[in-house]
Amino acid sequence: MGRQTVRLESPPSVAGFGNVVGRREMEGPLAACFDGSGRNALFGEKTWEKAESAMQKQALIRALDRAEKTVSDVDVIFAGDLLNQCISSTFALRDQGIPFLGVYGACSTMAESLALAALVIDGGFAACTAAMTSSHFCTAERQYRTPLEYGCQRTPTAQWTATAAGAVILTEAGPGPYVTHVTWGRIVDKGVVDTSNMGAAMAPAALDTLAAHFADAGTKPGDYDLIVTGDLGHLGGEILLELFRREGLDLSANYTDCGMLLYDAEKQDMHCGGSGCGCSAAVLTGYLLPGLRAGRWKRILFAATGALLSPLSSQQKESVPSICHAVVLSAGRYGKEAS
Amino acid sequence: MGRQTVRLESPPSVAGFGNVVGRREMEGPLAACFDGSGRNALFGEKTWEKAESAMQKQALIRALDRAEKTVSDVDVIFAGDLLNQCISSTFALRDQGIPFLGVYGACSTMAESLALAALVIDGGFAACTAAMTSSHFCTAERQYRTPLEYGCQRTPTAQWTATAAGAVILTEAGPGPYVTHVTWGRIVDKGVVDTSNMGAAMAPAALDTLAAHFADAGTKPGDYDLIVTGDLGHLGGEILLELFRREGLDLSANYTDCGMLLYDAEKQDMHCGGSGCGCSAAVLTGYLLPGLRAGRWKRILFAATGALLSPLSSQQKESVPSICHAVVLSAGRYGKEAS
Repeated sequence: MGRQTVRLESPPSVAGFGNVVGRREMEGPLAACFDGSGRNALFGEKTWEKAESAMQKQALIRALDRAEKTVSDVDVIFAGDLLNQCISSTFALRDQGIPFLGVYGACSTMAESLALAALVIDGGFAACTAAMTSSHFCTAERQYRTPLEYGCQRTPTAQWTATAAGAVILTEAGPGPYVTHVTWGRIVDKGVVDTSNMGAAMAPAALDTLAAHFADAGTKPGDYDLIVTGDLGHLGGEILLELFRREGLDLSANYTDCGMLLYDAEKQDMHCGGSGCGCSAAVLTGYLLPGLRAGRWKRILFAATGALLSPLSSQQKESVPSICHAVVLSAGRYGKEAS
Repeated sequence: MGRQTVRLESPPSVAGFGNVVGRREMEGPLAACFDGSGRNALFGEKTWEKAESAMQKQALIRALDRAEKTVSDVDVIFAGDLLNQCISSTFALRDQGIPFLGVYGACSTMAESLALAALVIDGGFAACTAAMTSSHFCTAERQYRTPLEYGCQRTPTAQWTATAAGAVILTEAGPGPYVTHVTWGRIVDKGVVDTSNMGAAMAPAALDTLAAHFADAGTKPGDYDLIVTGDLGHLGGEILLELFRREGLDLSANYTDCGMLLYDAEKQDMHCGGSGCGCSAAVLTGYLLPGLRAGRWKRILFAATGALLSPLSSQQKESVPSICHAVVLSAGRYGKEAS
């Protein structure tokens, strides 16, 4: 394998997965895919931040339940979120007693945590691991942008931070799907400074990681039933296809994006689609993993993208460094591997 | 090994290490240990946040230089810091082209990143990895506490966020020291709400992880030449010793703390000592690793502690969840291992 890609010798199995989403996500095309939702943004808590932690807890419980495991079976969990100091994850896991390694990859966190959870099993360091992340429209909006009460108008290129949490349980053996490859990303920054156009900032990072993956693994886009970024949105997805076209590769036949899948572009006024690390977490656990189990696809390249800015870095006139981490999910363990 | 501890089959070697510190750190007892320092808090940059990124870059260059490596030799770097969205690390690594996995463990980040960098090599996934972190008094103070211009008085239990960055390069083979064991921590929250007393909040997490380590590895405190927490400070360190005494274990003979080591308790007005993930990074790379190489110690248990709060979680009346991750550093590869 090449420098950025690891081929797992004994691909860990997805043993369980779970999610919980907000009201708008339940009004979208994937509504039937989700395990549960809140009637409002608070999920029974006093603050939106506590609500986001509650969502992670629920997603973890559903994932454990589906895996027929309990918290004491989990050797280590990799989790993270968008909030300052990753408090959604911290407070969700405060009383669980699970060894915890915090990760931060902005909206790429679901792929990053899943990659590490898989590597730790393949390395023989753990028998059962978990990966989890979340985002919440209200917590993200007031932290990154403006107080909700302003009712600030959004630009056409803006994406909508999903209110969603997702968790995945991995084990050494099991029915699959399996994590067969991991490609870790490098930071790419092409100088985009518009913080309302994350798709444009992140698309070059997705190109960098996907191109590295194809080169390292000796595969081509057609070797995957689905190539899913998360979350470039409609504009970022178009830019990615154009960037690949210039490289002489056509991804359009089997390409999609979690941010495009989560909401209805016609009926829901979400501008460029969904974002937030809960978006790819919910689409992964509600749509992609069940689809692999059901035989809808055999092999998916899941490439989550993140914009590594902060409000402060933008105030200091910095551009938006971006990253993309990719994971190959396969229905079979070695069925269609090219290497 | 027990649930929380991994014994590395082929302990990776520390190939290089580097650091850079601020002016106050150069006035402390470890001054002669450090690779470089800034004359003021800006390190030639326009803002303190950019200065912190510049410090990480310098620490990485010094570590690579000592390892006789270049950025293109590093397969993956684990890095993180205390700033919102970990921008010190992101912007430090923006132009380096190194595959990057962001981690967040508050002041435990040096141990967390070092643990993951070691596991990834032992698992056969990489040949050369790096771990890096930083903190900066001015960026932390204004983000977590009050604007610097206020000149706010600090309580006696407060610690001083170190202005420091440290980086470690690991390789499959080399002269050592070696990372032989990793113990990942669980979140412990005993209800401390005083955000100016992090030592008290974090000491129970250090107890939890160190006790798990001794049980898992079948060792006792005397099996280590040095047990170093980072950063409980003077009060937190005393609390940890007392907590262990109640468990029937005496750590006092070979216990110390990075926060106690960094500043002179008599001459420097740092209250309870140093903190910030740069503190343990600088003490590790300036004092502990060189001491292992020089034969001063044979085996060190390095246990970095983190307080996983945010200003917002405290405003919402939450207590301070804490965590501690531990790594065993050994001068020899299998010389003194108990298991």
